[in-house]
Amino acid sequence: MNKAYQSLERHFARLSSLSDALGILCWDKEVMMPHGTADRRADNLAILEGLRHEILTAPEMADLLAEADAGEDPWQRANLAEMRRVHTHATALPGDLVEACTQATTRSEMAWREARQNSDFAGFLPHLTEVLNLTRQVGEAKGAALGLSPYDALLDSFDPGTRQTDIDPIFARLRTELPGLIAAVLEKQASLPASIPLEGPFPIARQEALGRRLMQQLGFDMTRGRLDVSAHPFCGGATHDVRLTTRYEEEDFIPAMMGVLHETGHAMYEQGLPQNWLSQPVGQAAGMTVHESQSLMVEMQVCRSRAFVEWVAPLLRQTFEVAETTPAWQPDNLHRLLTHVQPGLIRVDADEVTYPAHILIRYDLEKAMIKGDLALRDLPAAFNDGIHSLLGLSVPDDRRGCLQDIHWPEGLFGYFPCYALGALASAQLRTAAYQQDASLAPAIAQGNFAPLMQWLRTNVHSRASSASMPEIIRAATGAPLSADAYLAHVRRRYLDHAPDA
Amino acid sequence: MNKAYQSLERHFARLSSLSDALGILCWDKEVMMPHGTADRRADNLAILEGLRHEILTAPEMADLLAEADAGEDPWQRANLAEMRRVHTHATALPGDLVEACTQATTRSEMAWREARQNSDFAGFLPHLTEVLNLTRQVGEAKGAALGLSPYDALLDSFDPGTRQTDIDPIFARLRTELPGLIAAVLEKQASLPASIPLEGPFPIARQEALGRRLMQQLGFDMTRGRLDVSAHPFCGGATHDVRLTTRYEEEDFIPAMMGVLHETGHAMYEQGLPQNWLSQPVGQAAGMTVHESQSLMVEMQVCRSRAFVEWVAPLLRQTFEVAETTPAWQPDNLHRLLTHVQPGLIRVDADEVTYPAHILIRYDLEKAMIKGDLALRDLPAAFNDGIHSLLGLSVPDDRRGCLQDIHWPEGLFGYFPCYALGALASAQLRTAAYQQDASLAPAIAQGNFAPLMQWLRTNVHSRASSASMPEIIRAATGAPLSADAYLAHVRRRYLDHAPDA
Repeated sequence: MNKAYQSLERHFARLSSLSDALGILCWDKEVMMPHGTADRRADNLAILEGLRHEILTAPEMADLLAEADAGEDPWQRANLAEMRRVHTHATALPGDLVEACTQATTRSEMAWREARQNSDFAGFLPHLTEVLNLTRQVGEAKGAALGLSPYDALLDSFDPGTRQTDIDPIFARLRTELPGLIAAVLEKQASLPASIPLEGPFPIARQEALGRRLMQQLGFDMTRGRLDVSAHPFCGGATHDVRLTTRYEEEDFIPAMMGVLHETGHAMYEQGLPQNWLSQPVGQAAGMTVHESQSLMVEMQVCRSRAFVEWVAPLLRQTFEVAETTPAWQPDNLHRLLTHVQPGLIRVDADEVTYPAHILIRYDLEKAMIKGDLALRDLPAAFNDGIHSLLGLSVPDDRRGCLQDIHWPEGLFGYFPCYALGALASAQLRTAAYQQDASLAPAIAQGNFAPLMQWLRTNVHSRASSASMPEIIRAATGAPLSADAYLAHVRRRYLDHAPDA
Repeated sequence: MNKAYQSLERHFARLSSLSDALGILCWDKEVMMPHGTADRRADNLAILEGLRHEILTAPEMADLLAEADAGEDPWQRANLAEMRRVHTHATALPGDLVEACTQATTRSEMAWREARQNSDFAGFLPHLTEVLNLTRQVGEAKGAALGLSPYDALLDSFDPGTRQTDIDPIFARLRTELPGLIAAVLEKQASLPASIPLEGPFPIARQEALGRRLMQQLGFDMTRGRLDVSAHPFCGGATHDVRLTTRYEEEDFIPAMMGVLHETGHAMYEQGLPQNWLSQPVGQAAGMTVHESQSLMVEMQVCRSRAFVEWVAPLLRQTFEVAETTPAWQPDNLHRLLTHVQPGLIRVDADEVTYPAHILIRYDLEKAMIKGDLALRDLPAAFNDGIHSLLGLSVPDDRRGCLQDIHWPEGLFGYFPCYALGALASAQLRTAAYQQDASLAPAIAQGNFAPLMQWLRTNVHSRASSASMPEIIRAATGAPLSADAYLAHVRRRYLDHAPDA
């Protein structure tokens, strides 16, 4: 490695400190900040983001990147490649486009909140039109800089290395198989006795203690992170200080518990990133798909499995002081509650079987929007058609249709597919892990996550961004990412009722 | 005003955002941060501080300051003057001296923690020697840049505009009067029946509710701030988001309550700064002395007054569910508990009568150290002599002597006098306020702080740094800062037992 590379490492370490600061300030904004300071905080965050952008796009940085030689070490080489990718993304956009995007999405997000409430797509259309126009310019500018199509360039912002040509065949397979599979699962479910609801209330202090207990069980390091409460659960904070949140309802503890498990999956990834590289681009998570695979690994693959439910049932009864023999609190019923399938209109409420359908619809639509093949006035009808064809439901209003998500109003195009890819990746990784190490499944049945986490550390977490998502999945599982493992998982859990699924 | 000035306002607004970020991150460090991330956070803070220093000392900034013309508006003129002062402080020190100071004080602070525990002055001496040598260089460099003596230059870092020549006669007066006054107060106190201790425990949730109730009573805006818990109470956060902390003990509620009142005094000052100028140097608090005067105004001047105790006694009984007639909880006894005087060795535990003595000793010693008139090996004996001559106590070990405070180990010379000046200023301001507006005292007796806060807003808070501490005190009270009001206050409260003192 040469001096220019060493100098770049110092610059990027400074950028990493700014990112840490932004991470903690964003966490604070959602968890701690008094509401009267919201505008000022927004200004502060914008100024810090601006500083980061300034440092990243300074002429000196381009010179150093041109001169840099990372030498033979594969991590330093990968680090330099990531530096160049990040730099290209940042410098691809002219300053006035960045500013126009910020202003348009700020306006659009506010307009969307009102439009959603009133199911007023027509009122929102001018905002979405503006955001889409600007996002298409972003895609073109980034695409030109990266040598990619506009949609691939947008994808690359969230999931480096993932391309439309990888996704299309996978999603085509899901589109073919999913409707029949959902129907079969619903038929099987209807043939079984109905689940018994759990009766609350469930005191919040106990829910919180339960969440902390499960985080500990998963191996979360409380000396380098926190659990708190926010309106929308998330995993954020800084590289050495991973902070997750949940929200509690007294009437039902399952949403908070599953929320903590989901976010702890994200957090374990962050805490498992290589300590020596945390302040460099190569030491960051490999993108949205791998991140989501880690949260779904915990929440969906493991913690809704029969084996885990067997282990957790006594802990739940003890937490909420329920008699050991109460029928609703037996593993069988708890498992049924945790794996209930019900096609619905709202993506974020969907179970793991119907969830990908929501993504397939959005993926097609956003590709068409970026390409210019879908006039925005036709979006609601196209969205509703998609829901009807994949889930058999009629959308009664746009509030529960194409206005339900914040992503497009915020200018996030190329983000949705990662959710479904993450679900597929989680199934593929879990299947490979259980096959490669026969001790993992029995350990989970004892509530022991250590062997699974060790496998994930070795095969996923510790690789950080030294490889791309497609490379990480292939190396860990021996095959490229596909829908196979996910479809097999759904059949085993929901049709075969395999005892470990 | 010209373009250069306008450009400076933009630069300083960016610096203000960085300061806000640092303020919230420092608060988080004390209140929220998991301990395993302490080193990383220290790095992050150092890097953000470095960025701020870089922006402030960039060549462009010097050019703009040279070109700038603030025009005729007095606030813009004062703002430019403050920009120049801040810039001079920042650019006065060569980079290697700043770095040497940071490293030396980090080492010294760690060594001090151990040395204090073991009363090991000899072991700490090399560290203090290094820190003092560097601090003398800082004083000389800043002094040369500001046209001040080294000690005045150090003072100016904490209390702009305050000079040794202002302090010397005031402290000389205290040195003459204080020993006799303390003796008289103790004699008077001994002639009265002993106070009755309050019996706990005092549940922490109720102490916290009491603290919030009192903050509300003082007018603290909870939409722009918070109350939390930390090991050492402080008031920090950001310009629009003032965060104070306290700590609770179950056995005694008075320390936490007085802590909240003290920090709320600081916080009211911050919340009362002019909103339009918050992101500019002129909009900041006018320095340590005025800040301390505002905390002591609330904690000492008002909330230990007989009038306030009369009002608060029923609230305290109600909070802790004490019968109305319990003798210990009558105003008379509560007031005696809150105004108990006891010469002691530890500065931070001192009452308002003996507190200035601790400062007089440190002021003389630190002036001599900076001047080079005191060999550090002679510091313990000189410190102990001072305590003996002013408070009549023998210091049994350096842990309770010259090793008790973190200030010198941290390189804070010129900081101590502001504590005592703040106490004098609080008495002088309170006396002037009560004289100028006869409605203030009766309002306090009703628990109504609004008129007093209005007076402070007008005469102190809203002036921010548009004037220096000496100017603010003189304009608000009609006289330069002196010990008169403080001495009169002590006599009225502790000797005359005036009904409103």
